[in-house]
Amino acid sequence: MFLFAWLSKKPSNNVIYYPNRILRGLEPWEGSRTRNPFSWIKEAMNSTEADVVSLSGIDTAVYFVFLSTVLGILVLSGIVLLPVLLPIAGTDDGVTRAQTTSNGSFSNLDKLSMGNIPEKSPRLWAFLMATYWVSFVTFYLLWKAYKHVSVLRATALMTPEVKPEQFVILVRDIPPIPQGQTRKEQVDSYFKTIYPETFYRSMVVTKNKEVNKIWKELGGYKKKLARAEAIFAASKMTGKPEGTKPTNKIGFLGLVGRKVDTIDYCNEKISELVPKLESEQKITIKEKQQASALVFFNSREVAASAAQNLHAQMVDTWTVTEAPEPRQLIWNNLPMKFYARQIRQYVVYVIVALTIFFYMIPIGFVSAFTTLKNLKKLLPFLKSIVDQAEIKTVLEAFLPQIALLVFLALLPKFLMILTKAEGIPSVSHAVRGTSGKYFYFTVLNVFIGVTLGGTLFSSFKSIQKQPDTVVTLLASSLPGNATFFLTFVALRFFVGYGLELSRIVPLIIYHLKKKYLCKTEAELKEAWIPGDLGYATRVPNDLLIITVTLCYSVIAPLIIPFGVLYFGLGWLILRNQALKVYVPSYESYGRMWPHMHTRILAALIIYQVTMFGYFGVKKFFYATFLIPLPILSLIFAFVCSKKFYRSFRDTPLEVACQDLKETPDMQNIFRSYIPPSLSSEKFDDGDQFEDALSQQVSRTGSSV
Amino acid sequence: MFLFAWLSKKPSNNVIYYPNRILRGLEPWEGSRTRNPFSWIKEAMNSTEADVVSLSGIDTAVYFVFLSTVLGILVLSGIVLLPVLLPIAGTDDGVTRAQTTSNGSFSNLDKLSMGNIPEKSPRLWAFLMATYWVSFVTFYLLWKAYKHVSVLRATALMTPEVKPEQFVILVRDIPPIPQGQTRKEQVDSYFKTIYPETFYRSMVVTKNKEVNKIWKELGGYKKKLARAEAIFAASKMTGKPEGTKPTNKIGFLGLVGRKVDTIDYCNEKISELVPKLESEQKITIKEKQQASALVFFNSREVAASAAQNLHAQMVDTWTVTEAPEPRQLIWNNLPMKFYARQIRQYVVYVIVALTIFFYMIPIGFVSAFTTLKNLKKLLPFLKSIVDQAEIKTVLEAFLPQIALLVFLALLPKFLMILTKAEGIPSVSHAVRGTSGKYFYFTVLNVFIGVTLGGTLFSSFKSIQKQPDTVVTLLASSLPGNATFFLTFVALRFFVGYGLELSRIVPLIIYHLKKKYLCKTEAELKEAWIPGDLGYATRVPNDLLIITVTLCYSVIAPLIIPFGVLYFGLGWLILRNQALKVYVPSYESYGRMWPHMHTRILAALIIYQVTMFGYFGVKKFFYATFLIPLPILSLIFAFVCSKKFYRSFRDTPLEVACQDLKETPDMQNIFRSYIPPSLSSEKFDDGDQFEDALSQQVSRTGSSV
Repeated sequence: MFLFAWLSKKPSNNVIYYPNRILRGLEPWEGSRTRNPFSWIKEAMNSTEADVVSLSGIDTAVYFVFLSTVLGILVLSGIVLLPVLLPIAGTDDGVTRAQTTSNGSFSNLDKLSMGNIPEKSPRLWAFLMATYWVSFVTFYLLWKAYKHVSVLRATALMTPEVKPEQFVILVRDIPPIPQGQTRKEQVDSYFKTIYPETFYRSMVVTKNKEVNKIWKELGGYKKKLARAEAIFAASKMTGKPEGTKPTNKIGFLGLVGRKVDTIDYCNEKISELVPKLESEQKITIKEKQQASALVFFNSREVAASAAQNLHAQMVDTWTVTEAPEPRQLIWNNLPMKFYARQIRQYVVYVIVALTIFFYMIPIGFVSAFTTLKNLKKLLPFLKSIVDQAEIKTVLEAFLPQIALLVFLALLPKFLMILTKAEGIPSVSHAVRGTSGKYFYFTVLNVFIGVTLGGTLFSSFKSIQKQPDTVVTLLASSLPGNATFFLTFVALRFFVGYGLELSRIVPLIIYHLKKKYLCKTEAELKEAWIPGDLGYATRVPNDLLIITVTLCYSVIAPLIIPFGVLYFGLGWLILRNQALKVYVPSYESYGRMWPHMHTRILAALIIYQVTMFGYFGVKKFFYATFLIPLPILSLIFAFVCSKKFYRSFRDTPLEVACQDLKETPDMQNIFRSYIPPSLSSEKFDDGDQFEDALSQQVSRTGSSV
Repeated sequence: MFLFAWLSKKPSNNVIYYPNRILRGLEPWEGSRTRNPFSWIKEAMNSTEADVVSLSGIDTAVYFVFLSTVLGILVLSGIVLLPVLLPIAGTDDGVTRAQTTSNGSFSNLDKLSMGNIPEKSPRLWAFLMATYWVSFVTFYLLWKAYKHVSVLRATALMTPEVKPEQFVILVRDIPPIPQGQTRKEQVDSYFKTIYPETFYRSMVVTKNKEVNKIWKELGGYKKKLARAEAIFAASKMTGKPEGTKPTNKIGFLGLVGRKVDTIDYCNEKISELVPKLESEQKITIKEKQQASALVFFNSREVAASAAQNLHAQMVDTWTVTEAPEPRQLIWNNLPMKFYARQIRQYVVYVIVALTIFFYMIPIGFVSAFTTLKNLKKLLPFLKSIVDQAEIKTVLEAFLPQIALLVFLALLPKFLMILTKAEGIPSVSHAVRGTSGKYFYFTVLNVFIGVTLGGTLFSSFKSIQKQPDTVVTLLASSLPGNATFFLTFVALRFFVGYGLELSRIVPLIIYHLKKKYLCKTEAELKEAWIPGDLGYATRVPNDLLIITVTLCYSVIAPLIIPFGVLYFGLGWLILRNQALKVYVPSYESYGRMWPHMHTRILAALIIYQVTMFGYFGVKKFFYATFLIPLPILSLIFAFVCSKKFYRSFRDTPLEVACQDLKETPDMQNIFRSYIPPSLSSEKFDDGDQFEDALSQQVSRTGSSV
């Protein structure tokens, strides 16, 4: 934090600490230069939701609703649970008395947890009540949050400003072209019949692989040229007045081959590629039309309605959805066929399930081996090293966690690739899919895997004798892992949020690049562009913390303050980052929320079930009073999904029918959807669109 | 059949045998009077689907598609299975040789079934192949049928004629009225904002209980008056020229109380009730408006689109569906609240499940006791009676079946009441719901119940020793019940279709009523009005036969001819009845089909699973080759539902956007939805609707 306060004051670091503000053309710092190092906290606290929405979009605002809801759940739970349960657990010494003689490792933390209460003790009633309290707090706050997010989304969709994506629908699975028609004519005539007045025009999706390749190559040479020119100009300034022309080798990675003058070489290549690109663009537009299209309407109400309607009698043809923003379209996935998507989805599910269970084995082993006692037992020669106090502390606290964190860092990219392979048309949807898979992974492997893994190893024989249900097993092994998860949560917020706020890694990389690599303005900008908040991993990680904290909230209430700190600090630091650093890469109008909501509820149900199991382990027969809780949770989930969910999937008409500030400029909207590799100045001059009615031109203009 | 040929020639019976034609204003008989008694068969065979559609509607046509599809499945199966499997089974005497000495009851039928093949015999390969053949035939024909029905439905919905229900949507769960507005204004302003050009007007649903009661009373007195006048007129003709005025007592059931002149009394009552009805109508329209409405649009495309769209941001308010026809609206269910409907649905499911399992016990007992051998064993004193040849035949063949049929006759009404209690808005939907419940009931109780019941009783001890899976148990007890189900199918088509064609019961009732009760034309018409086909029980009964026939098709192929006869005769006779007798009471445009399709598939899966079990019983280890079959069936079901189902739930826009023959007369459409108890001449004169814009009148006219 101090590091941040010091580093962020230097103006040269502005691009690292205030990129979002800079990109929006705002002053990095508002107000006076004499601000104190902690003014960012005040700023973050004072910022309103409207600020977040205007600077970072609805998705970020929804993420803060998520953080503050979870924070609220933990604070409200903690206010009741800490003062009530800690004394109850701490003053009871039934178990301690019975066990201290035989087992000296009974630590202080365990004394303050439910493990300290003897079986069948009437004090367990307090814990049972606490379980109910946590559940109802969760229900109440989730309900409020869902309502709030729902309003947020509706307000954003009602905006009088023209948003291109509100006028477009995405059509997939177009049936084969009838004889004597082009794809473009087929789409046009189909939608003109159904929407004679509101249909504007259509854009057939094309196969852009070739043209993208050429465009990328061209872009690469342009960049190289700019860079070479910058180097040349710099050499003029510093060295000889005529300058040194930069040269490069044209072979593999610039290491082998003939040496050429870079500027000339690039110019040559560019003049070679430009006509190639143009001819490829024409070919693509004419001949590589796919069975998918974007259809543009004059009115956003009609577009919202069209995206929900069934158009064709054969349901698997002419399927429609709301079009995502142009920037988050995954073009390659659009022409994928209906059943191909279905099959891919199931295949991906199977692969993910296999991944989850294959990872389970190594993680189980790692966590079982890395408890120190096991290490000592198994590898006696380590004993002398491990028994040294400092090493012991470090190892005990961080060794298993670090193993876990490394494991987890490998996964998200892989899951993202899998999710995109399902045929999902938009980046935001793919992020949600990845987040969901990652959540299952973390909960199953980290939480349940670690908990059971340790137990399985230490009590493998007893299980073989008495095959038990997973729930009881999980419940009975929970208390033993309380310390592990406490340190896990603590590590997460100290290391994670420290890195997050100070942005040490991007800072170092930026300065290194600035000094040695970047020669042009564009390259410099590329070096500090911060990216977005990365929901695909951020959300499931937070959800894991929620699951852990909820599950231990009653068993070892001391975890609650850690959870509060995690989400409180998280809220504060990310508020700063959202306002000043991260640039959202898409806007899905809060469609992440139902996803978060369901998973918080899933965490709650896991908690309720394990609590039931743990009360069973304690032989507390009133545990049956807990049975209504998971049922209540399911009813709550059902009601929420019935009441809110569909308005997140579709745009309600009462929202879409709000008036616009101005008549939408349909040409602009249309043009915003042209993929960059297909746009060129020639198409941009507008004349092309005016006489779109004539046969040839309309076909050419179709996919542009 | 001969009875039918003779009776149907008498012109006085026309109203029983040709009511549908009479009601449509056609001659009962086409062509000459010299037709032979079996010309109806020719007529039925020659009738095209278009005839059925025009005379009896899409739903009936779909029912015939169902019958002919099933017939096709059985015929195609039989063509291969009978000549192949019967010789294979008949020439094998492995089991017979081993058992004839100990058990003499091995009947001829059993010799031709799969039970005659010894365990592990290579001949079982033929039966395995047969299982595949039946499955693929089913897939192929179902696919063709689904496509065909889909086109039928689309063609009907595309009709250029104006159908009122295509211009209306049903809106439920309207939120509470805002201050200072009426319900009517709320609905109007809401839909006017969203559909400024196409919204025509709305009709708020009212609570009609009181007004219905008065209207019914009034109708009763009007009928009585007409009847009394007819009697009076008749007495003038026959007796004294001044006639005898009919009298009646006004007390309980007309048996006690003061004696009055019926004509005067009725006139008095009518003149008393008419103003009461009018004032109650006004009160109802003004003050009993409910949170539900019918909304009328100028265009059927917009109505089709509106019925699919999400309107409100809170998904559980302003829920919309396509409006059913006026005649099949269940008015009382319309204002039911969203969550009330959900809860009622689950409660009904629980009640139905309980019913199914409570009935299981008695049916199991009945079928166990009523096999003759058991009767003799348990009640030895019956032996002398039962051993007489004729009684034995009758009892053996029909006793258990009759017990079953009586059982089944009790149920449908009960299920219909339950289904309506779910809050379903249309009769056709309620019929589908009832049919589904009844199907589960028949399959679970009659088929599985009888099969297992007999076995449970005869092998109760062996089961106690070796608890087995239900599938194996079911499979192993199937062959023993083959005879039972053969007679069951035979009984069904002999008795059922005989009664159906000859319409003996309605004929007798009609003639009795005509002679003794009916005095006016209206009463006479009421006596012969035939009702509709009664899908709620007809379809599940057919489905039961399919399930039985499919399950035995490979085990005892002799059942196939009986199945073919059942569906062939059924097709023929019902074609006659549909063209000439039954009057459909609603039109749902074939929405019954997906329901039938799914249940035929369910029957197929039951068949595949039991076959797998039965091959297991035969210790035929290549039975594992059957595992892909149920999986294939599930994939087939999934693809069908993805490809076709939604176009049965919603109207596709490409269908709804077809041009109409004429501009729809919106007033007529609106008026067709006015419930009869609320309509009166005063509202019918049209002026009321012209100035619908003025405040008071529009409110009055709202629900009319």
